[in-house]
Amino acid sequence: MDRHLFLASKRAAVSFAPDPVTGALRPWLAPGGTGNVVAEQAGVLDVTWIASADTDDDHRAARENPNGLSLRLRSGRDIRVRLLRHDRETFDVVQNFMTAQLMWAANNYGWDRWTTPTFGAETYTALERFTEFTEDFAGALLADSADVADPVYLVHDYQLVGVPARLRAVRATAPILLFVHIPWPSPDYWRILPRALRVGLLEGMLPATTIGFFAERWCRNFLDCVADLIPDADVDRNAGVIRWRGRRTGVRTMPLGYSPRALDADHPRLPAGIAEWAGDAPLVVHSGRTDPMKNAERAVRAFVSAHRRDPRVRSSRMLVRMNPNRLYVEANADYVRRVEYTIAEANAELGPDTVRLHCDNEVEHTIGCFRRADVLIFNSTVDGQNLSTFEAPLVNERDADVILSEMCGAAEILAPVCRTINPFDLVEQADALIAALTASSAERAAAAERRRKVAEPWTLEAWVRTQLERLDADHRDD
Amino acid sequence: MDRHLFLASKRAAVSFAPDPVTGALRPWLAPGGTGNVVAEQAGVLDVTWIASADTDDDHRAARENPNGLSLRLRSGRDIRVRLLRHDRETFDVVQNFMTAQLMWAANNYGWDRWTTPTFGAETYTALERFTEFTEDFAGALLADSADVADPVYLVHDYQLVGVPARLRAVRATAPILLFVHIPWPSPDYWRILPRALRVGLLEGMLPATTIGFFAERWCRNFLDCVADLIPDADVDRNAGVIRWRGRRTGVRTMPLGYSPRALDADHPRLPAGIAEWAGDAPLVVHSGRTDPMKNAERAVRAFVSAHRRDPRVRSSRMLVRMNPNRLYVEANADYVRRVEYTIAEANAELGPDTVRLHCDNEVEHTIGCFRRADVLIFNSTVDGQNLSTFEAPLVNERDADVILSEMCGAAEILAPVCRTINPFDLVEQADALIAALTASSAERAAAAERRRKVAEPWTLEAWVRTQLERLDADHRDD
Repeated sequence: MDRHLFLASKRAAVSFAPDPVTGALRPWLAPGGTGNVVAEQAGVLDVTWIASADTDDDHRAARENPNGLSLRLRSGRDIRVRLLRHDRETFDVVQNFMTAQLMWAANNYGWDRWTTPTFGAETYTALERFTEFTEDFAGALLADSADVADPVYLVHDYQLVGVPARLRAVRATAPILLFVHIPWPSPDYWRILPRALRVGLLEGMLPATTIGFFAERWCRNFLDCVADLIPDADVDRNAGVIRWRGRRTGVRTMPLGYSPRALDADHPRLPAGIAEWAGDAPLVVHSGRTDPMKNAERAVRAFVSAHRRDPRVRSSRMLVRMNPNRLYVEANADYVRRVEYTIAEANAELGPDTVRLHCDNEVEHTIGCFRRADVLIFNSTVDGQNLSTFEAPLVNERDADVILSEMCGAAEILAPVCRTINPFDLVEQADALIAALTASSAERAAAAERRRKVAEPWTLEAWVRTQLERLDADHRDD
Repeated sequence: MDRHLFLASKRAAVSFAPDPVTGALRPWLAPGGTGNVVAEQAGVLDVTWIASADTDDDHRAARENPNGLSLRLRSGRDIRVRLLRHDRETFDVVQNFMTAQLMWAANNYGWDRWTTPTFGAETYTALERFTEFTEDFAGALLADSADVADPVYLVHDYQLVGVPARLRAVRATAPILLFVHIPWPSPDYWRILPRALRVGLLEGMLPATTIGFFAERWCRNFLDCVADLIPDADVDRNAGVIRWRGRRTGVRTMPLGYSPRALDADHPRLPAGIAEWAGDAPLVVHSGRTDPMKNAERAVRAFVSAHRRDPRVRSSRMLVRMNPNRLYVEANADYVRRVEYTIAEANAELGPDTVRLHCDNEVEHTIGCFRRADVLIFNSTVDGQNLSTFEAPLVNERDADVILSEMCGAAEILAPVCRTINPFDLVEQADALIAALTASSAERAAAAERRRKVAEPWTLEAWVRTQLERLDADHRDD
């Protein structure tokens, strides 16, 4: 597909701020996350990437550079990004309420149903703001491609689910890819949303040529949601195809594991004091954002249970590494409090400093901890993919065992070479920790070798290529 | 099907206690609920019904009457029940933890995932108790039918999901019906359960000839759970058929609405003071057990919102009627506190006593309130069927409008003649309340007439007949 490509995502993965010395605006790259892989994708494809301006300085940078800005990613790739300047209040409502809270909980099983959610007038107001935000993106993509005969649109992540319908209204035959980086829930759960949202969001997506997810499970759930809520859609679950209003949409699984260039470019190191604290003790590492889906609380409780049950693992220690993220979201702040409390309880029982919490957003520290681990536990309650589950075994230097939640998208690839667990079951997690901590070094080495072989092919470059190939195939069938 | 029938359910819907005057044991009937419809079914079929003894007096009654006891239901039907005497601790764990808490939350979407549930060793112990309880039932059914050449087994409700496999092991070709009276969740939610449970329970059920639910949605979810978790099962979603280990199981929707004889036998009356309090005011009635799925809190908030938005409805009052049930379950006790708090807030805003809470377990009071209502709101977050949604419009004397949650099983029949709402959306519920409270009497009369016509055919007798017909058809196809 050598046509002109247009790439968009809300998250810029870069923020502009004045250099403390010169005062000139310079870009600061955000650590990790899916925003970064879209940035990498812009580099691979050599296209201008449209993303949202966030801070005052972002707005200033956008004003001063109406045709976009160049920057160099950690991977060494140079990219061009054009920052969209939304109405500030609109962006505030979309970023802090509509996407980070409402849609995040809608896709990540964040509501208990009994006490949350309750939708009132503010939800409908937020939906109006979201519509305006969606139109900003569609307008920018259409304006940029106005003079191009055969544009191809690559639209990334759940914040832009309304964009395909707006592009399709103007570009009836263009290939449009929508990629959702987070999970998609079962129909009964998606139904929790007000009708205007649950149907409106699906109708915004279906005009895409291809809708991509990281895992089969999310594709299946999406197909089931469409079958449940769009009565005039014809859903072929086996083929992954939806026929609706004279068009055809492919729903495709396209896994991503890691970006080799980004991984190579890092200079991993342990955070200060961790090497001395851990010594030669077998070290269990849990790592993730400050988001309750990352489930550190139950990982710590399982670690305590393993210590109780098996004297052979009592020399082990546990490091809970958290990347502070959106702590203004009550669910996230509450999660941090619960993890801290659980760690205090664990240390009261197992001895001071047996479990340690370390928080910062330095990628080098995360990778440093991945290298030092003897056991890696990724026990998310749910997770779109969880790229760390690919990265960590690839950088680890001690043949670490890997315990993996069956509800990570990544489990569809890595389950055969990991110890998969139910994230709610402490008995199963404690069993896995004991087995991992008591495995022989020969077993560990053989398992690590198998794991690297399985993980290795899933590169960013392969993922980008797959997106374009699938889009091309679905476009020809449309 | 004129073969010998054997009927079992955990809930006896009757409890034995000494007569305060004579001291002799006598039966006390429990109000409402699905236990009662199984009792009615025993009467229609004229069979001995096996159920669990609960209290000390139940055990005494069972000891004194090893061949069963006769009793007369409110409907006037005479039935025979034989009470099973489980180990007391086993029954305690099964009743108070395994079914009322764990399995109830598993089927009614009661967990938030982020903070609940967490399964530890106590869950596995409870599963052992549940196995013993299951074997008690299978053993009793097999013993009772030992001399019968062609027995037919009717096994009712979710507490007995393990029974079909145990019957099948001994009775390879017998027709076995399992009827689940509560919702069945989507696969991602069912997966929350520990592997031993989520797979073990399905494997206990699949040997049934027919598995019945009240709604298509629960059948669909059940089929999807089997497809997700039983790799060697062949699931035909369209036919509602599962092929597994050389057998064939039909998964069937069999709705139930009401028992005409039970409804006719009641002597409805308003609880003391309600007539005076309500006067001639338009009265909104919410009714249900003390269970968070009944969602009274959001109904009251929607009522407040309707008052705020529309002066025409400001003379209306609201009665929240609750049947106290399992208040030792923390989720239920917490629900009552939240409803009380929300009512206090509503009255602080709308004026004293605009919303009133009334709690007791008198069926006559419930039916009395159904008769007096001008608007009935059944807004469950989820509900297997909710028989009240059939009963209330049939007994109501004021052409009451009916607002119905789309997540009640009953909505599959009653949605076309009710105002269906999303139980989480206050805007939609307030809209529905305003429309209902401002409808003309001609509109109300016409709608009530249509509603009665749609509700009327769904009698207990038709439901029992349908069960036997479906079981017979599935048995012939097996």
